[in-house]
Amino acid sequence: MPELRKDPITARWVIMATERGKRPSDFVPETEEEESDEAIKHCPFCEGNEAMTPPEITAIRAPGTQKDTPGWKVRVTANKFPALRIEGDLGRRGIGMYDLMNGVGAHEVVIESPDHKKRLGHLPVSQIADIFKVCRSRVEDLMKDRRFDYMLIFKNQGKSAGASLNHAHTQIIATPIVPKRVIEEIDGAISHYQAKRRCIFCDIIDQEQMLATHRIIYSNDEIIAISPFAARFPFEVWILPKKHLADFTMASDHNLQGFAEALKVVLLKLTKALNKPDYNHIIHTIPNRLNFNGSNPYIEEGYHWHMEIIPRLTKLAGFEWGSGFYINPTLPEVAADYLRDTDITGEE
Amino acid sequence: MPELRKDPITARWVIMATERGKRPSDFVPETEEEESDEAIKHCPFCEGNEAMTPPEITAIRAPGTQKDTPGWKVRVTANKFPALRIEGDLGRRGIGMYDLMNGVGAHEVVIESPDHKKRLGHLPVSQIADIFKVCRSRVEDLMKDRRFDYMLIFKNQGKSAGASLNHAHTQIIATPIVPKRVIEEIDGAISHYQAKRRCIFCDIIDQEQMLATHRIIYSNDEIIAISPFAARFPFEVWILPKKHLADFTMASDHNLQGFAEALKVVLLKLTKALNKPDYNHIIHTIPNRLNFNGSNPYIEEGYHWHMEIIPRLTKLAGFEWGSGFYINPTLPEVAADYLRDTDITGEE
Repeated sequence: MPELRKDPITARWVIMATERGKRPSDFVPETEEEESDEAIKHCPFCEGNEAMTPPEITAIRAPGTQKDTPGWKVRVTANKFPALRIEGDLGRRGIGMYDLMNGVGAHEVVIESPDHKKRLGHLPVSQIADIFKVCRSRVEDLMKDRRFDYMLIFKNQGKSAGASLNHAHTQIIATPIVPKRVIEEIDGAISHYQAKRRCIFCDIIDQEQMLATHRIIYSNDEIIAISPFAARFPFEVWILPKKHLADFTMASDHNLQGFAEALKVVLLKLTKALNKPDYNHIIHTIPNRLNFNGSNPYIEEGYHWHMEIIPRLTKLAGFEWGSGFYINPTLPEVAADYLRDTDITGEE
Repeated sequence: MPELRKDPITARWVIMATERGKRPSDFVPETEEEESDEAIKHCPFCEGNEAMTPPEITAIRAPGTQKDTPGWKVRVTANKFPALRIEGDLGRRGIGMYDLMNGVGAHEVVIESPDHKKRLGHLPVSQIADIFKVCRSRVEDLMKDRRFDYMLIFKNQGKSAGASLNHAHTQIIATPIVPKRVIEEIDGAISHYQAKRRCIFCDIIDQEQMLATHRIIYSNDEIIAISPFAARFPFEVWILPKKHLADFTMASDHNLQGFAEALKVVLLKLTKALNKPDYNHIIHTIPNRLNFNGSNPYIEEGYHWHMEIIPRLTKLAGFEWGSGFYINPTLPEVAADYLRDTDITGEE
C-alpha cells in the first residue's frame, strides 16, 4: 500500500510509492555531451578568463595577486545576465487590480574553484567551507541594502537543474520581497513554536536521532544529514545544523567547517550512488534581519537554517506543479540506506 | 528594467525578464525520437489493444460494440501503475511527530482517441468536448466516495512534461486530502470575496476585457483565453469560463462546447508557434462538494473553475522550486501577441 506522508513544517503531503520503489539504478541520468577543450577555453569562470565576467566583487586569492586576474580560489562577480538590476528604486505601483514593482535586486555568482572540471563535492573540505564563508559575507553585505528583504543562496548543477554553465558555481539573488515558499516554511515553524515553545527543526533532529535513526545519512558534531520523512523527491537530502540557529549569516567558522564536511560526504555519496546526477541545493534562512528586526516574533527561536539538496532524477509532472502534491517513487528510508552504504573511499 | 509582478490570487511574485525577452524561436524543444511502428503496436492505449489495460470503467463507443473491444472514441480505465490504491481505509496515524495515512485514492486514465498519432489539439471540437464531459462524469462518480476530498484532472503531454506514454490521455487522481496549492488558491479567492463581495477571477476577466485587451489570446461566448499578468512560465495560458462557476462538474454541455472550441484554438496555436512543445494542463476546481458542503463559506461565490496550460519550454531551476519565486523570460503581453498572430488555418 502506498503511503501519504505530511511534511510537519509546511503541511505538504507526499505520495510515497512504496511498492514499485525505485532503486538508484532505475534512474537514468540525462547523458550530457562531453564539453570540447575549445568550449572550455571560452568558459568565463575559468582561471585566466577573468576579463569575461563583470568586475570581481570579492575573492579569496593568493597574497600579491590582483583583482580580476588569476590567483584566486573562490571568486564572486555580478551575474552577467542578471534576473534583477541593482540600480533604481522599487517603484511599487498598480495597474488596475494588479501589483507590480521594478525588478530591483542583486544577482551574484560565486565561482567555486578556478578548475573547470571539479564539482563542488570534489573540492577539499576547507575550500567548501571557504565558499560558504564567502556566501555568508556576501549576504551580510547585501543585507545592508534595505531595499532587499531576502537573500537566496542556491546552486544549479547541470543542465537539467537549470544551469547554463558547467563550471561549478553558486548563485545569490537578493530580492525586494520574501519568496512565498520561504514565508510558508517560516509560518509553519512559528506556529509550531507558538504551540510548543520548541523549534520544529530541533524536534525533527531529536526524533531522527533518538527514535528512529534509519533516515540519517551522515552526522558529525555540527550537522545531521537526513532523508526527510516526507521527501518530495527521490534521494532528497536535508543538511541540518544540530545547534539551533535561525540565520545562516550567524553561523560561525566552526559551524561552517562541520557543514562543509557533511556536505562533501553527502555530495560524494549522491555522485557515486546516482552516477553524477544533476542537482539543486538551496539554503533556507530567515529574511533580512535588519528589515524585520522585531517584527517577526519567535522567528529567531522557531526557525532553523538548513540546506535542502534535490537530485534531478525525475521530471516534475503537471500534477505536481499544479497541486503542490508530490509523488516520490523512493521511500526516504530506502534512499538513506543506499546512501549510508555507498562507500566513498578514494572518491576525492 | 525587469519587472516584479504579483499574482493577485495567490500573492506569488514573478520576475519578468523584460530585456532579454525570449521569442518563440529561442526555445528549442527537446527532440523526441520518432516511435517505431513496432513500439506503437504495443501501445496499451491503441484501438485493438484494449486487453493491455485494466478493465474499462466507461467509454463513448459505437452502438453495439462491447466493453474492452474496439469501437470507442474516448475510453476510461484505471491506471495500470496507480500512484494510489482504491481499496482500504485511510488509516490516519502518527509516528512520533509525523503524520501519515494509507495511500488510498483513485488514479484513472482518460484515453482521448483510438488514434495513436493525434494530439488533443488535433481532435475535432466535438471530441474534445466529449473528453471533458467524460472527465466531468468520472469526477461526479468519484465524489460519491466520501474518502476523497479532491479530484485532480490533468494532462502530461510529452516526456519533458512527465508523460510515460505518447498516446494522448488525461489523468484523474482522487485524493483523500486537498492539495496545498489548491487550498492556497481557494484561500486567496475567498479573501478577495470577503473584502469585495466579488469573484477575483471575474474581476480579472473584466479588467482583461475592458481595460487592457493585450493579454487576450482568444475569446468566444463562453471562454476567454489569456496570458496571465503574472505568468510563471513563458507562454503560460489560462482558459477562463466567462460565466461564474466554482465547480467544474457543474459546467453544462454548452459550457464545455465553448471550452473545447477555445482549448483547440489555443493548443493549435501553441503547437504551431512553439514547434509542438511538451505541455501540462490542469483543471482547477473546488474540493469534493459533498464532503465540504457548507463548511467552506463563500467558496461557491468566490472561486471560479478554469484550466491552466504550461508549455514545458524552460527547466525549473533550484531557485524556483525552493522559493516559489519564478523567473519568466517572456512577457505575457509578448506571448499573447505571438499567439494571437499565429495563423492556424489548415492546422487541423
